[in-house]
Parts: sequence; C-alpha cells; structure tokens
Amino acid sequence: MGTTQLESVPEPKYWQLKTVLTQALDSEFSVGEILPNERDLAARFGVARATLRQALEQLELEGRLQRRRGVGTTVAPPRMGVAVGFEQHTWPGTADDAWQPVDCTVATPPAAVADLLETGRNEPVHTLRRSRMTHGQPVAAELLYIPDASVPGLSAIGTLPGAARARTVLRELQHLELEGHSQTVELGSAGAEDARELDRLPGAPVLVVTTRYHADGLTAAVSVATYRADTCRLTFGATGGVEIHHDPERHAS
Amino acid sequence: MGTTQLESVPEPKYWQLKTVLTQALDSEFSVGEILPNERDLAARFGVARATLRQALEQLELEGRLQRRRGVGTTVAPPRMGVAVGFEQHTWPGTADDAWQPVDCTVATPPAAVADLLETGRNEPVHTLRRSRMTHGQPVAAELLYIPDASVPGLSAIGTLPGAARARTVLRELQHLELEGHSQTVELGSAGAEDARELDRLPGAPVLVVTTRYHADGLTAAVSVATYRADTCRLTFGATGGVEIHHDPERHAS
Repeated sequence: MGTTQLESVPEPKYWQLKTVLTQALDSEFSVGEILPNERDLAARFGVARATLRQALEQLELEGRLQRRRGVGTTVAPPRMGVAVGFEQHTWPGTADDAWQPVDCTVATPPAAVADLLETGRNEPVHTLRRSRMTHGQPVAAELLYIPDASVPGLSAIGTLPGAARARTVLRELQHLELEGHSQTVELGSAGAEDARELDRLPGAPVLVVTTRYHADGLTAAVSVATYRADTCRLTFGATGGVEIHHDPERHAS
Repeated sequence: MGTTQLESVPEPKYWQLKTVLTQALDSEFSVGEILPNERDLAARFGVARATLRQALEQLELEGRLQRRRGVGTTVAPPRMGVAVGFEQHTWPGTADDAWQPVDCTVATPPAAVADLLETGRNEPVHTLRRSRMTHGQPVAAELLYIPDASVPGLSAIGTLPGAARARTVLRELQHLELEGHSQTVELGSAGAEDARELDRLPGAPVLVVTTRYHADGLTAAVSVATYRADTCRLTFGATGGVEIHHDPERHAS
C-alpha cells in the first residue's frame, strides 16, 4: 500500500544505505563517473532494488548524483552558485542581464500569474521565453509576463521574429520607472518544455523563482524562472568583497 | 534497469496522468481530503501502480498533495509564504526573530560549515538548534553555528540547560556589529532529526537556506535552515505596501 512507508521507523533502511553510499562516493568514485547499474549495486550492498532506488533518489535530491538521459547515473560535480537576488534596481533586458531572449508570444497567462499582475484572467499578455546559461550549461528557463499596460508605447510588432520581438518589448519596458521587486522560491517539477530546455526529464525537481517587478504602484511584470535543482544553488544578497571586507571609503564614494 | 525511464519520450505517461489527476483534484476533492489508496486510484485511471506513484510524486513536489505519517495522501492547502530575506540588519535572537531556541551544544560542524566559518575543520563551535513555527505548524529547523571568536565575552555556561544556554550565546553575539549577510537556497533531503522536528519522513525534499552573517570582515556565524518544501514558499524582498503603493511622502520622512 502507498502509505506503508509513511508508518516506518524514523531511520529506514534506505537512509542507512544512503550514508554507506555517500562514503563509497567519497572514497571510490570521481566526479562524472558512471555508477554501476542498479542490479549490481543492489547486489553489492545486499539490499532490495526498491531500497537502493530510494537511496539513489535521496542522493539525487542532495545533488550528489545526476541521472542523465541516455547516460545513466553519474557522480555530480559540486553545485554552481547562481545569483538570483537583485543588487541593483534594473528591469529585465538591461546590459548585465544573464538571460537570453528565445521567443515572444501574446498569450493568456496561468491564473496565478494573472492574479499577481491584476489583469483579468482571460487577458492576453506579452509572454517572453528566455534562457539562462552558466559555464555553457542551461541552468534556468524563464517565462516573463508583461501586460500591455506596462509597454503602452509598443506599436505593431507582429511581423518581428521571436527573439527580436522579445528585445523590442524589453526595450519598451525600460521606459517605466522600476520601484522594487519581491521574490519567492519554491519547489516544483519541470514541465515538458522546461525539461527539454534544461536537458532534464519532465517532472524532475526544480526550484521555481517567481519575481514581481513593481512600477507606478502596480505589478508591471512577473517572471517565473525554473532553475535546475540538481546543479544549482541559488544565491541571494552580497557574496562579494564589499560586505565581507568592510571598506568605509568605498561606501562614502 | 534504472536508466530505462531516462530514455523515454518527452511527455511520458505519468506526466499525462498528472494532468488528469490535477483536474480531478480541482473538481472532486477539497483541501485536507484523503485520497483513495493507490490500488483503487490505479484501477480508476487504468494505469499501472508504478505510473500512478510517479504522478503522485510529481504532485507532491508541486505542493498539491501531502503524504503524512499514519494518515496517507491528502490534498494540500496552498503553500504558506515564509519570509526568509532580511529587511533589517539584525542578528539571530533579536526581538522580532521568528526562531525559538531548542538546544545548544558545542560540537565540530560539518566540513562545509567549517570552511564557511574559516575555522579549522576539527574546531568545535557553539551549535544552536532552533525551530520555526507558522500558524502552529513546524515549518523549519535550523542549526546555527557560532565560533568562540564571535562570542569572546562568554564565560562558563556549561551548567545552563539547552534553551537558556542558546539564549545566552545569542545575547553575547549582539555585541558584534553586523555588517551584512548572504544567503543561498538549494534543494536537499531531510535528515533524521530534522524530519522528526518537521513531522516528515527522513529523505523528504526540503529547501535548505544557508545564511552567512558577516562582522569584522569575517563570517561570524552560519545558519543552515531546513524548510519544509511541501508547505512553504520562501519569500525574499519587500512584499508589503511600501513598494507596491508608492507614497513619496513616506519615502521623504
């Protein structure tokens, strides 16, 4: 029954196995190495395949293992720090933006996004798809929702191809004065399109970062960004030298 | 074999089933309701138990379902927003702190924490365990690591019981001038003790928030907080009225 495992003891067998496996990963395997198949691993540790699979899933959650399409299970490199918080007040699309526009359509957003934008539930908005790469790897896929009211100067752009159209919308957005932003982070699972872009299976755990951009007392745009949870560690706030090595003169300038 | 599913088509069967199940949850079930058992659900939707289980796991990742010890699988309420970012420069333990001290020991921290603190790998540090409740539910468990160097005025406190001892260490920490903090968020799995505190199974997915507190050009303390990923949405930055409803007079005051 589905609830059997829910009544098990606090430290079930797969948890103990995970500890043993972690030690094996540290001592016997190197980053990128392909693990033996499940049958062989189960035999080696004297456990059932189901127990092994649970332990492997935990290690995948913790970023120690990666399952890759057509490759198998490999030992993961340490997670990359990916900056998510905002140091400056900037709109998406400014020069130092980490995101590359892919496409732009006009579509009805999900109900939750419409509620954040305070547009009507059936009102179409500019929907930009953007992607973010780090060290040549795709780390995140974004949908950026911008209602017509935030880009009032936009004239007919229907004939532009996707990425150029996205850049035009972003350029128009800069005319608004950005007042601030707020963010949420939660666990999610990759949809089919995000999964394709991130080179993951649909349903893989992802970190979903939702950002609201505020201008003129309203939510001017909403970004829903899906980060690979296996390879990314999201960083917020100052990580550089300014705060760690305090320098009064720099603050005074 | 373990890799079979990794070679499957972009929209596997469990993904389609998830969509159908989501609709059923919206139309037939209310928050808190217990789902039929896996056997009955698999029969109803005409799928194998393994397929059903995968779909249920996705819905759990997305916060739509909850598996609870001794209860079964229930329809989850919407996730709670839990403020994680810092609006003010404050040390842990100040009056508006959301955390309750539980215990305090002196122990060698994990290697990753020792590296952040720049203490030696075998140097014991004050290790506070704290818990955070929201609406009467445990939402997070924290380990707060404070090296001796950050609380130099601390005299013999070995005889104090756990929570009182934690408060003494926190009070001593306030003597340092806080210069800033940086945070990371990543996916993890609940360890046995965290799981007990959070009323989850060991290995349940959690959001791990690591905060470094900077003072005197050094990392003065490190907090590793484990948030329930099923019930929590972490919020960063201003969510209140100041930025959304812009008021020039308030800014001028």
